[in-house]
Amino acid sequence: MTTFRKTLAEAWAKNNSLLCVGLDPDPAKFPARLQGRNDAILEFCKAIVDATADLVCAFKPQMAYFAACRAEDQLEDLIAHIHAAHPGIPVILDAKRGDIGSTAAQYAIEAFERFRADAVTVNPYMGRDSVEPWLAYPEKGVILLCRTSNPGGNDLQFLRVGNHEGRSERLFEHVARLVAKEWDHAKQCALVVGATFPAEIARVRALIGDMPLLVPGIGAQGGDVEATVKAGRTPAGTGLILNSSRAILYASKGEDYAQAARQVAIATRELSNRFR
Amino acid sequence: MTTFRKTLAEAWAKNNSLLCVGLDPDPAKFPARLQGRNDAILEFCKAIVDATADLVCAFKPQMAYFAACRAEDQLEDLIAHIHAAHPGIPVILDAKRGDIGSTAAQYAIEAFERFRADAVTVNPYMGRDSVEPWLAYPEKGVILLCRTSNPGGNDLQFLRVGNHEGRSERLFEHVARLVAKEWDHAKQCALVVGATFPAEIARVRALIGDMPLLVPGIGAQGGDVEATVKAGRTPAGTGLILNSSRAILYASKGEDYAQAARQVAIATRELSNRFR
Repeated sequence: MTTFRKTLAEAWAKNNSLLCVGLDPDPAKFPARLQGRNDAILEFCKAIVDATADLVCAFKPQMAYFAACRAEDQLEDLIAHIHAAHPGIPVILDAKRGDIGSTAAQYAIEAFERFRADAVTVNPYMGRDSVEPWLAYPEKGVILLCRTSNPGGNDLQFLRVGNHEGRSERLFEHVARLVAKEWDHAKQCALVVGATFPAEIARVRALIGDMPLLVPGIGAQGGDVEATVKAGRTPAGTGLILNSSRAILYASKGEDYAQAARQVAIATRELSNRFR
Repeated sequence: MTTFRKTLAEAWAKNNSLLCVGLDPDPAKFPARLQGRNDAILEFCKAIVDATADLVCAFKPQMAYFAACRAEDQLEDLIAHIHAAHPGIPVILDAKRGDIGSTAAQYAIEAFERFRADAVTVNPYMGRDSVEPWLAYPEKGVILLCRTSNPGGNDLQFLRVGNHEGRSERLFEHVARLVAKEWDHAKQCALVVGATFPAEIARVRALIGDMPLLVPGIGAQGGDVEATVKAGRTPAGTGLILNSSRAILYASKGEDYAQAARQVAIATRELSNRFR
């Protein structure tokens, strides 16, 4: 069976890349040629995908941007295009869903059967049975929020929730342990850890073995690539999905946006490879 | 300005009801007449809505069921129908979204501008700045997950996160205090608390004053109406949005499903009113 983590490992190797391009299409930032077109989101994203597919280990469409524009059909077509034109590059649907089991099962149908994503981001707040319907698809990946890079990430995730092996433990550490020890029995899981906290990335890495980490915040969000890679890499020099969205998508606002995106993707890949 | 909480308070009074009908349309459970129709979800839900609108304080469509069926257009039409045919009954979009600020702003466009919901459920795991884009719509309600009724609700929400006023505090209590003290500055918030834990509903009520509580789990999920109402009511005998979905929607699998739904809604309203 081809699983998400196997496909990801092959993409790390094939493209020699930890880079994931995040697809957060904002029509206001599109070049003039695409303005006003019904298929602008699809065309914009396809051009980015085709210009960077040999440089990445994954693509990560952010559902909110499609949903705000009534563009679910374009998201379906975009993911179908990635699978057809660039087989072997996994698609992570960034949805951050989280609901009771019967509802999560519906969201899993949405993400895995309707949109044909290879993996999805999921919120752990509702606990194990809210995650199981996603895990019921053995070939798919489930990427749990752990330590997010936004300012409010501290509000809950940084709370001290007790002691583990003589060490005071914060909520995000508890989530990392819980996922690694209990939810990842079939090696389907990964964790989201923000790029702005290298010490915390290292702590999470120590807790989870070689489970992949999805790290948003490379590029436009100001994360430090060197510190992130050194903190989060596995002994094999992989284990990371370094996401960059805006810095790549909007590298140029002109008609050359796809070529400009390719140049930034090359530079980001090279930079991160230097520290693997 | 007509706010969500004002509209809700008026609906509590006008319909003498704490009942919210959850709209979780599952086409496999529809009567034969609707099977195979393109607009089956819309027609099923409209019949339920029209049969119960004088008995409820809110309707709560669950987005996952619409998304799994590619039925976003029917959800738009359903909410438009509720606003047009039953003005004064607020619509809570059960989405449980939670993402960084710029992404949450896109989800808020989806929920409030595209779907025209009056309130939305939101996951608190990513903290304050993930909630602010929702609060930026002053007339809308933001209903934060606090203590959910599913088995895995314990995994994170029940962790002890420290002490407050000499009392050991769990994560859900911390969330309740955080929302009441810091996030609810404009009286837009409410909390989700599962019906299966009356002692915890009472504890949350003690922490939050008269903020509304959305309580799923009435009916099919087995929550005890008497204990829930006694634990969660405000001194005015309101403060509760008691959601029932499957027990009402699928009271009959025959063509009389809307009338059957009405009978269960009447019984549930009467039962809950007995303990206000």
